[in-house]
Amino acid sequence: MSVFTRVTAEELSAWLKRYAIGTLVDLQGIAAGIENTNYFVTTSHGRFVLTLFERLSAAELPFYLNLMAHLARHGIPCPAPIADRSDEYLGTLNTKPACFVTCLPGAPVGSPQSIHCEQVGATLADMHLAGRGYGGKLENPRGPKWWREAAREVTPFLDEEHRGLLASELEFQARYRSLDLPRGPVHADLFRDNVLFERERIGGVIDFYFAGIDALLFDLAVTVNDWCVDSAGEIDSGRATALLGAYRRAREFTRIEEEAWPVLLRAAALRFWLSRLHDFYLPRAGELTHAHDPEHFRRVLEARRTRPFPLV
Amino acid sequence: MSVFTRVTAEELSAWLKRYAIGTLVDLQGIAAGIENTNYFVTTSHGRFVLTLFERLSAAELPFYLNLMAHLARHGIPCPAPIADRSDEYLGTLNTKPACFVTCLPGAPVGSPQSIHCEQVGATLADMHLAGRGYGGKLENPRGPKWWREAAREVTPFLDEEHRGLLASELEFQARYRSLDLPRGPVHADLFRDNVLFERERIGGVIDFYFAGIDALLFDLAVTVNDWCVDSAGEIDSGRATALLGAYRRAREFTRIEEEAWPVLLRAAALRFWLSRLHDFYLPRAGELTHAHDPEHFRRVLEARRTRPFPLV
Repeated sequence: MSVFTRVTAEELSAWLKRYAIGTLVDLQGIAAGIENTNYFVTTSHGRFVLTLFERLSAAELPFYLNLMAHLARHGIPCPAPIADRSDEYLGTLNTKPACFVTCLPGAPVGSPQSIHCEQVGATLADMHLAGRGYGGKLENPRGPKWWREAAREVTPFLDEEHRGLLASELEFQARYRSLDLPRGPVHADLFRDNVLFERERIGGVIDFYFAGIDALLFDLAVTVNDWCVDSAGEIDSGRATALLGAYRRAREFTRIEEEAWPVLLRAAALRFWLSRLHDFYLPRAGELTHAHDPEHFRRVLEARRTRPFPLV
Repeated sequence: MSVFTRVTAEELSAWLKRYAIGTLVDLQGIAAGIENTNYFVTTSHGRFVLTLFERLSAAELPFYLNLMAHLARHGIPCPAPIADRSDEYLGTLNTKPACFVTCLPGAPVGSPQSIHCEQVGATLADMHLAGRGYGGKLENPRGPKWWREAAREVTPFLDEEHRGLLASELEFQARYRSLDLPRGPVHADLFRDNVLFERERIGGVIDFYFAGIDALLFDLAVTVNDWCVDSAGEIDSGRATALLGAYRRAREFTRIEEEAWPVLLRAAALRFWLSRLHDFYLPRAGELTHAHDPEHFRRVLEARRTRPFPLV
C-alpha cells in the first residue's frame, strides 16, 4: 500500500481552488510506487495525477518538475506538471510538498519484445536530445559518491565472496571516473514499470524522481540492463540490438562512448545491486514488502563483468 | 481547401530532425481553417498538428504560442506548442513561419445542449483564471480601433438601414470605452468549431490566433453569442443560463461587469457582424468560399439591442 499520506475529498476540493482545472469528480489512491503518495484525480476538466512527496524535500523538487515540464514542452510523452494560478508547480498539501501532473495513457509491459525495446531506445534518445537545453543542475544522487556510502553500509551484511565482488567493482569503476562522456539530464530509472505502452506505442514515460545530471550512456545502460536482460542476468541479443539500434538512429555515439559502454553497463548493474542490497538489509519503515531480491542485480553485474555486450 | 502551402513528406522528414518527436509516419492536410495551413502529422512518437502561418508574421506569433503554452501548463486542454532542440517554438518551413502543437481529442458539436454550454462556461472561466499570470502583451486586434476601420471599409456596400445600424452601434459602444472591466488574455473566437468534445467532456479548445488582451467579459459575450443563440439571433435561455452559471461558479463577476454585460453582448455581435461583412464584401484571394452570411450577426446585434439578456 503506497498511500502514505491520506487526502480526503474535502481537503482536495479546497486545494483544487488554487488551480484552473475544474472541480473534483473522483479521487483514487494509486497502489504502485514506493517513494511517494499518488492519487488519480478526476476533475470536471480531465484526469490528473496528484503526488505528495514523502522522501524528496521542496528544495530538491524543482529540478524534477522543471525537467518534466522541459521534456513535455519538447514533445516527450512524460507527465507535465500543472501550474497553479500563482504560476507555481509545487504547493503544500497535508504538510507534504505536492503537485499535479498530467495523466498519461497506457500500461507497463511485463515481458517486452523487440518492438517495445525499439520504442524505448528511440524515446530515450529523444529524451536525451530534448534534455540538452535543460538548465537544471543536480548531480545524479545515485552516482559514484552514493555507491561508496551505500557499499560501506551494506558490506557488513555480505559474505566474503560478495564483499570481494563489490570491492573489486568499485575499484574498477574508480579507474573510469574521468571519461569524457556526453552528459545531461538522465531518467536513471527507466525500468519496465516506468514506461506505459498503448499496444506497441509509448503513451508515457513516468517517475522522474531518480533523475539527475549524468552520462547519457549511463541512462542507456540502466535501460538495457532491465529491458534486454533475462532472469539469469544475461543480455537478450535481439532486444538489445533493437533498443540500441533505435537509440543510435536518433543520437550517434561518440568514440569514447563506444569504448566505455561495457564499463557503463557494469556501473548501471552496480548501482541497482547496491540499492537493492540497501533496501533489503536497511529498509525504511513500511518499505520491506517492496524490497526486490538483490540477487538479480548481482547476477546482472557478474554477467556484465564476464560477458561484455558490445554497443551494436 | 485550406492547405495554402504544400509540404512534402521529404521536406517534413528533414524538418523533423530539428525536433525530438521521432520520425515521420504520416502526413494529412486539414481542410478546416481559413487562416493557416494545417497538417496532422503522425510521428513514431505520437500525433501532432503542424501549422504554417499564412496571415500572421513571425513577430506577432510569440504572443499566441506563449499564451497556448501558458494555458496548457495550467491544465487548460489547449494545443501546446512543441519546442525544437534549440528550445524554439517557431521555425520556418517552405518560407512560412511554422510550428508543431499537440493534437487534442474530440470533435466540434454542431447543436450544443445545456450540458455542453456548461462545460464551455466552466472552461472559459478557467482559461481566464489561468491567463491572469500571462505576461504577453497584444491588444485584441479586432477591438474598437479595428471596428472603426472595418466600418469605414464596408459602409459603401451597405444600404441606408444597415449603415444607420452600424453608425448607431459604434456611437453607443464609444460611450462605454472607459469601463473598468477585468482584463486579460481572451480567446476572442470561442465558437462551436473551436471546441472539441469527447462525448460531453471538452477534449480541446483550439485556434487561438484571434486572441489578445481585452475585457474577459468580451470573451464571454462572444461565446454566448455563438453557443446560446438560435438561427434568428435570439438567446436560448436554458443554454445561456447553463453557460453563465458554470462560468460564475469558477469566477465571480464584479459589479461593473454585471452592469456592462448588455453592452458587451452588443460589442461582441458588432465585432462579428463587421468581420463577416468585411469577408463578404472585401474577401482576400481564395477566401470567398468560406465567407459566412453577414446577416446572421446583424440579427444577433439587433436582438441584443432590443432584448438585452441579463447576466444570470
